Amino acid sequence: MKVREKRDFPVGEVRRFLEPGPIVLVSSAWQGKANIMTMGWHMVMEFEPSLIGCYIWTQNHSFEMVRRSKACVINVPTADLAPKVVGIGNTSGRDVDKFSEFGLTAVPGTKVAAPLIGECFASFECRLIDASLIAKYSLFVLEVVKAHVAASPKYPRTLHYRGDGVFMLSGTNTARYRKHFKAQNL
Amino acid sequence: MKVREKRDFPVGEVRRFLEPGPIVLVSSAWQGKANIMTMGWHMVMEFEPSLIGCYIWTQNHSFEMVRRSKACVINVPTADLAPKVVGIGNTSGRDVDKFSEFGLTAVPGTKVAAPLIGECFASFECRLIDASLIAKYSLFVLEVVKAHVAASPKYPRTLHYRGDGVFMLSGTNTARYRKHFKAQNL
Repeated sequence: MKVREKRDFPVGEVRRFLEPGPIVLVSSAWQGKANIMTMGWHMVMEFEPSLIGCYIWTQNHSFEMVRRSKACVINVPTADLAPKVVGIGNTSGRDVDKFSEFGLTAVPGTKVAAPLIGECFASFECRLIDASLIAKYSLFVLEVVKAHVAASPKYPRTLHYRGDGVFMLSGTNTARYRKHFKAQNL
Repeated sequence: MKVREKRDFPVGEVRRFLEPGPIVLVSSAWQGKANIMTMGWHMVMEFEPSLIGCYIWTQNHSFEMVRRSKACVINVPTADLAPKVVGIGNTSGRDVDKFSEFGLTAVPGTKVAAPLIGECFASFECRLIDASLIAKYSLFVLEVVKAHVAASPKYPRTLHYRGDGVFMLSGTNTARYRKHFKAQNL
C-alpha cells in the first residue's frame, strides 16, 4: 500500500468524487493526537463556497475532535483499502492510534491541522464553518478549502456502503449521455 | 419501460439504496399538478426516525412544490432510465408535465399526496419534517414514512452523477468483508 502522489484540484469540483456517494475516511487532529473514522453519510451542499454536509455520531471519538478543532480531512479510499476501512470502523480512537494500527501515512495538511491520509486517492481539507446543526442533527457543515487528487486513474474503484456488511463497488463511468445535457445543467 | 411491482420495505433500511449515492428522481404534487426533478445531493441523516437530507435549488420548480406541500417521493431510477433522468433535469415543471413528457406512470402514494414513479425501482414517500434549513442551505429534512421496493433484483444497476455529464454506474455488490465487521457496526 503506497502513498499516492496527489495534485491540487479545484475545490469547487470535489463533487466529481463525492456526489457518487463513496465511503470516506475522515481524519482529524486535536491536542497532539490524530484519528480516523469511516463515514458514509455525507452530501454536497454547495459549489461556491464548496460545502459538504456530513453526519458524525456523537459517540464517535472523532465527533469532539472535529467539533473542537473545527477542521478535518475527507479522504476517498479506493476499493483495495476495504479491509482497513472496515477495521477503522470497528475501532475507536480512544483505544488505538489508527494511523499506526492500520499502517496509514499521516501527511501534513496545508490549510488545516488535520492530516491527510497518504494512501487515499483524494483528500479534501475542510473547515467546520457551521456548528449550529450539530446539536440537533449531528450535522457538520464543512467547507472544502484545499483539494488534493491523485493524477490517475481519473476515476478509481471506490467503496459504497449499503449497511449490513455489504459494499457496492463503483462500476464503469460513461459520458455517453453528456451530449443530451443542457449546458447549464452539466 | 414497464411499471415495476414493488413491495413494502422497512423505512429504517432505505440506506441500502440511498447511502451508495444514486441519482434520484423527486416527485411532488401541489394544487393539482405533479412534477419530477433529478437530484444528486442527498444523504441519510438518521435511522429512526428515517431521515433524509436533500438539497433542492431555489430555482427548481419543485422547490416550492415540496416546500408548500410538505411532502415528496424519492424514487430510485435504474440505469436504463438514464435518458429520462437527463431529460427531466433539462426541463422545468413550469413548462411541461414531466410524467406525460417522459412517459412515466404516476402511482398514488399511500401516505403523501405526491405520486410515486411506477417505472422506478424504489420509491420512498417522504414528509418534510423540518423546513428551518431551507432558507440558509436549501436543505430539506425529510422523513421517510413509507418505502416501496421492487422484489428483484436485490440491487439493480443505478446511476451516480459526477457532474460534467459523466455518470458512474453502480458495479458489483460484495458481502466478503461482512465477517470482519463488529456486529454493532453493521
